[in-house]
Amino acid sequence: MTLLRFLDVAGVAVFAISGALAAMRKRLDPIGILVIATVTATGGGTLRDLLIDRQPFWVTDPTYLAVIIASAIVTIIYVRFGSPPDRGLSIADAMGLGLFTISGAKIAEQSQLAGLIVVVMGTITGIFGGIIRDVLCAEVPMVFRKNTLYATAAMIGASIYVLMPAQIMDRNSAATIAIAVIIGIRLAAIYWGITLPVFPVDQSGEGK
Amino acid sequence: MTLLRFLDVAGVAVFAISGALAAMRKRLDPIGILVIATVTATGGGTLRDLLIDRQPFWVTDPTYLAVIIASAIVTIIYVRFGSPPDRGLSIADAMGLGLFTISGAKIAEQSQLAGLIVVVMGTITGIFGGIIRDVLCAEVPMVFRKNTLYATAAMIGASIYVLMPAQIMDRNSAATIAIAVIIGIRLAAIYWGITLPVFPVDQSGEGK
Amino acid sequence: MTLLRFLDVAGVAVFAISGALAAMRKRLDPIGILVIATVTATGGGTLRDLLIDRQPFWVTDPTYLAVIIASAIVTIIYVRFGSPPDRGLSIADAMGLGLFTISGAKIAEQSQLAGLIVVVMGTITGIFGGIIRDVLCAEVPMVFRKNTLYATAAMIGASIYVLMPAQIMDRNSAATIAIAVIIGIRLAAIYWGITLPVFPVDQSGEGK
Repeated sequence: MTLLRFLDVAGVAVFAISGALAAMRKRLDPIGILVIATVTATGGGTLRDLLIDRQPFWVTDPTYLAVIIASAIVTIIYVRFGSPPDRGLSIADAMGLGLFTISGAKIAEQSQLAGLIVVVMGTITGIFGGIIRDVLCAEVPMVFRKNTLYATAAMIGASIYVLMPAQIMDRNSAATIAIAVIIGIRLAAIYWGITLPVFPVDQSGEGK
Repeated sequence: MTLLRFLDVAGVAVFAISGALAAMRKRLDPIGILVIATVTATGGGTLRDLLIDRQPFWVTDPTYLAVIIASAIVTIIYVRFGSPPDRGLSIADAMGLGLFTISGAKIAEQSQLAGLIVVVMGTITGIFGGIIRDVLCAEVPMVFRKNTLYATAAMIGASIYVLMPAQIMDRNSAATIAIAVIIGIRLAAIYWGITLPVFPVDQSGEGK
Repeated sequence: MTLLRFLDVAGVAVFAISGALAAMRKRLDPIGILVIATVTATGGGTLRDLLIDRQPFWVTDPTYLAVIIASAIVTIIYVRFGSPPDRGLSIADAMGLGLFTISGAKIAEQSQLAGLIVVVMGTITGIFGGIIRDVLCAEVPMVFRKNTLYATAAMIGASIYVLMPAQIMDRNSAATIAIAVIIGIRLAAIYWGITLPVFPVDQSGEGK
């Protein structure tokens, strides 16, 4: 199994878990949970593949859907009979963000795209599944909630991956480090409340 | 006219009606009604075509858009001068769900995709137009409202279509039965309140 | 620089400004502002390119992303140190609508699509970026707010562009006039409250 395939499979599994947890909070029925888990797990990679004009990664290989179904069922059973995971959604989401961002960056890199585009494509791949999940669950997307360093973490990780000189480190090691940085930034933002400054804007006098 | 084209044309017409009814409830102006009708009627099939890398079904053939415009105008006139349709939105939506789910499954099948992928592709085709309609109208998508057996109906119908042995029944008959099953399940869920169980999850202690 | 490229670059710049202004109102941090600006500026053209099966316009040419980043930074600085722009979001949005609608129509025309499809493709290109911006900011999309002549302006402009006889006017002049008409209709709707009539619908007796 190549690193790229591992990133996609692992990202699919943790995003499926994060989608199932979000859907269970909304008290959806089992099929609703499965739908949200599937959309969350495939959304980012599917958009990436449409943008690069590849066949969506899950279409030719049913393994991904099997992983999603298994992840959703295990999550349902675990939450039903075990204790609900403390901060489980945030942690699964942080791991999915890291895995998918770098898988998106790797694929964009293989398509010989410019460095800036590689960073953007990685960020899109990482954040889009979670955005769809939150929009469908009628939540403000986690990426846009205050003080979460969400897209920031993806951009920093993708930039590290793109800029890391090949002489210093092979690409797979760079990918691993970039993933760890993304997960680390997100978890630091969640646990220690690290934030970026906000620019206030006077809202009076604005049109509709 | 092939069965596939009939499914797409009929699905487009009923989803256009469902979109027009939803937009009229939101008191949009005529162009707003037309836009919502168009998005609802083309959304699911367009996503299906993007995923399978076909040209979107309405791009090369203006018939579909003409059908949408006619359906929206007839709906506006009917509601304006007749009585508002009792449960009309739910019924049109159920028919669109059945027609589009099986049209999506048929196209995925023609592309030689695996059975599980065919079921997923059919479900996506069936539910996506309605999801966009509801998101744009700022409603919780019908597919995620409690006790609607929405995605469930699509999955069951698509599974029947995929699993029906060719020795027992030709593909077009299987498609017709699957469509009837989907519409039947949806209407039964609406009128008799049939539901799937919901798994509660303790929300205390969860992260943001 | 061709007219088409100018339309895309200028449309990207003004939609990036409109996205940055919307994100600043929501008090997002700088990266959140950049993400919303990027999605707003690339959304409509990206959907157009996916539908026509072209590579998304920003993927091969990093100029667009550089324009977006610059526009977002200038907007942040201007709002931070200057006075907040009075009705600035509405005006930037009207300009983006005009530029992107006609750029979408031009590209659809080059693909030899039918006139009705060209109008629809132009309208999609014009309105979709703003719809995503508003959905992500948890606002009712501007296109669906009452009395805004939003999609109406795009459709009228695209229709003028499509129907203008080549004997009377060359295509670039037709494009320029169509853009001016779109911006004019939108600004007239904003400042003078011009509207289309709304058809009420009795909501009693409707299903869930």
